[in-house]
Amino acid sequence: MRFLRNELREPGELELLARIRRRAAGVSAAGLRLGIGDDCALLQPRRGEQLAVTTDLSVAGRHFRLDWHPPEAVGHRTLARGLSDLAAMGAKPLAAFLSLGLPRELTRRSGRGQPWIDRFLDGFLALAESYKAPLAGGDLAESPVAAADIVLIGAVPRGRALLRSGARPGDTLYVTGSLGGAAAGLAQLAQLAATSPAASRSASPSALRIPAKLAPRLASHLYPQPRVAQGQWLMKRKLATAALDVSDGLSTDLAHLCEESGVAAEVDAAALPVHHAATLAQALHGGEDYELLFAAPQTTRLPRTIAGVAVTPIGRFVRRRKGRPLVALATAQGFQPLNPGGWEHFS
Amino acid sequence: MRFLRNELREPGELELLARIRRRAAGVSAAGLRLGIGDDCALLQPRRGEQLAVTTDLSVAGRHFRLDWHPPEAVGHRTLARGLSDLAAMGAKPLAAFLSLGLPRELTRRSGRGQPWIDRFLDGFLALAESYKAPLAGGDLAESPVAAADIVLIGAVPRGRALLRSGARPGDTLYVTGSLGGAAAGLAQLAQLAATSPAASRSASPSALRIPAKLAPRLASHLYPQPRVAQGQWLMKRKLATAALDVSDGLSTDLAHLCEESGVAAEVDAAALPVHHAATLAQALHGGEDYELLFAAPQTTRLPRTIAGVAVTPIGRFVRRRKGRPLVALATAQGFQPLNPGGWEHFS
Repeated sequence: MRFLRNELREPGELELLARIRRRAAGVSAAGLRLGIGDDCALLQPRRGEQLAVTTDLSVAGRHFRLDWHPPEAVGHRTLARGLSDLAAMGAKPLAAFLSLGLPRELTRRSGRGQPWIDRFLDGFLALAESYKAPLAGGDLAESPVAAADIVLIGAVPRGRALLRSGARPGDTLYVTGSLGGAAAGLAQLAQLAATSPAASRSASPSALRIPAKLAPRLASHLYPQPRVAQGQWLMKRKLATAALDVSDGLSTDLAHLCEESGVAAEVDAAALPVHHAATLAQALHGGEDYELLFAAPQTTRLPRTIAGVAVTPIGRFVRRRKGRPLVALATAQGFQPLNPGGWEHFS
Repeated sequence: MRFLRNELREPGELELLARIRRRAAGVSAAGLRLGIGDDCALLQPRRGEQLAVTTDLSVAGRHFRLDWHPPEAVGHRTLARGLSDLAAMGAKPLAAFLSLGLPRELTRRSGRGQPWIDRFLDGFLALAESYKAPLAGGDLAESPVAAADIVLIGAVPRGRALLRSGARPGDTLYVTGSLGGAAAGLAQLAQLAATSPAASRSASPSALRIPAKLAPRLASHLYPQPRVAQGQWLMKRKLATAALDVSDGLSTDLAHLCEESGVAAEVDAAALPVHHAATLAQALHGGEDYELLFAAPQTTRLPRTIAGVAVTPIGRFVRRRKGRPLVALATAQGFQPLNPGGWEHFS
């Protein structure tokens, strides 16, 4: 619990820390007994609840680019990554913790406009409020490279978490929402950066201006919505035998699900809910859509939408056989192996 | 839960991830239901328990130096920072989570010897085993600057956590162990680096050789012992009205305690348990000793040692008065203000 470290004792920064503490206090917090300000935060789980815990590290130049991504989007995406892991377990958010390593200039006002960190917090806290995930603590340190580590703690009734390991041969494979939108949005952002002389010459924070008419086409990439309500819906009704979130791309994440469950999978190319702006390759291999991928017995009847988001059957789980691929893609031309080819970030 | 990200898919690194998972499984884990390998870890608190959560970010060049600190010490110190926060609340460790951002060369074998990350884990996991704090998850990402974010989750009976906010005027101020040893050890390390031509010319990992005869004098800095047993002892007996750990130095941390409790404090210089290798200034302002600083009513009788570690009364809490310092140092010459002058790291 180090939002008050002495290494950030300059007047402007003490004020920043007080501001974080004040702003964090604005987010509703049912299970939080003690937030920022002591050695630890204190959480009160309810009887019969287990706690789901996940951490995700985002590094500038790898998971985001200071010269491409608006600070609000970096804040939103940082928290969305963690919330999506909770969603994949069917857990309800209890509290978030954020460790930020930042170059000093990102904590200071530069010319017109707010400091980078304030805009980062705008995006972070807006999403935190939407999903009732109060910022309960964290750490702040100076670092030559911007990095954000997000910790999410959620609650799930004992023994009811959606695991990766429960898919059985014969189960149907489902996905929420659509796939490839985030990859298509990123491609659009890269194109914008390439044709924007100011941005291409500068690695300075948020140098890239995003025209308003392009914003909707970038939203899947910049402001993904974790499927927290959908995960809890599935958990409560015991309908899914296994689940995970599509963070590294369908081909990669489905392979993880198969490995942990000890099964193989077949995906029907024609059934995939490809995002309207995306290609089939982006839907198969693009990352950061943060949709849920899950298994349910063939006999289970699922609605077409869960909490307002489409649910689509896209294939099935089968027995693993020697010489057969772990994940296969079924097209009009027959089967072909679908090898992991997910997200390569910005490296 | 991302120790299996696709960005680390090279054969050597997949093998590294499998090794972390295997080695982490070796640490005892009473409250851990599901560890590395799914979207989240699952913890099972016991009835009536609250959870204490803390995160601490360590950045190369600021909290440690790759060219000074043996990787084992970086691993040990990373975990010790988090454990010490639990100790300060009187909480028992349940699980640790570790996010590592590392330059690629630190994950690879270079010439003779193990990769840096393996030696880091040696130090980390040895301490984790000592304190029954299983590594339950985390994240691993490539980063141009080495950084480690540690998350500790502990359990404490409801309403019994030691807070910073309970000290009252008249309470006695205590500290465990001795003060200044870590600062003295760091000064010794800096001197060694300055007189070691190989190290001073190179910023390469662990270039500095530490002669065996110097090791004991560096131990307080390189391998601090968090006071987990002492914190739990105080919590169980309801003897402390407030507590925190000395991470930023007595002068800084005591000011935090006073601020959160709304009191002032007087420290008796002659009573301070100054580490045998340290100066008074190092004991007053040096950081990273990870001793516990706590308050107890004047009428409380405490033993001289708790779980094998000395406990020393070093002053008292008094009412805040206008024009009087928040923290004062009492010497033979009278009172003087003791202003926060703690740890400045390596900047």
